[in-house]
Amino acid sequence: MVEKINLAAKLALLDTAYEPGIVGYLNDYKLQVVKVKGPFVWHKHDETDDFFLVIRGRLTIHLRDRDIDLEPGELYVVPRGVEHCPDAAEETEVLLIEPNATVNTGDAGGDMTTEPRML
Amino acid sequence: MVEKINLAAKLALLDTAYEPGIVGYLNDYKLQVVKVKGPFVWHKHDETDDFFLVIRGRLTIHLRDRDIDLEPGELYVVPRGVEHCPDAAEETEVLLIEPNATVNTGDAGGDMTTEPRML
Repeated sequence: MVEKINLAAKLALLDTAYEPGIVGYLNDYKLQVVKVKGPFVWHKHDETDDFFLVIRGRLTIHLRDRDIDLEPGELYVVPRGVEHCPDAAEETEVLLIEPNATVNTGDAGGDMTTEPRML
Repeated sequence: MVEKINLAAKLALLDTAYEPGIVGYLNDYKLQVVKVKGPFVWHKHDETDDFFLVIRGRLTIHLRDRDIDLEPGELYVVPRGVEHCPDAAEETEVLLIEPNATVNTGDAGGDMTTEPRML
């Protein structure tokens, strides 16, 4: 049976920045929450757009030519193939939606690559 | 150029309940905002799940066997093929995500069937 999802309660289960947790699915898309603090890694997803909605805090998505600054209730969809680097000065909470097969670090790989856990 | 989306600002452009507006796209999914007041129509989507996130107010999604009550920051994904009827006692604002081809009234049709406009 599918239950409702309280995003703040799910985010409270996360200890560490950049360790995403899956809270549900929309068809073949994973609904993830993640805490952001400090810069992530520059990367891109050639096969998919990438949805970010800020729940708490303030998120900057660096693009190569500009920054996207998001407050709670603001969202941004990074187009497929566009290099981006999420960043936050203070701990920030985000809802992230992307296809199930999407790797968090995209084409970049490296130490920050991780599989989301089910929350 | 893709811009950020402030959900409250987009919702302020809507006058009428159950007239959804498109605020962006995630691949072949439409990101819509909609105001809910009073009961919608019972319907189902056999081809897709249906994502609801409450931005403001309080949403009840009636299912045939129970109600899902959602507050701001809470989301629910109605599984494909499951009959549901959104409802709200007071005007409520929602982010709705579903494939581009999805019809708002699903299999039910009728007077509340509408095409979303671009906001």
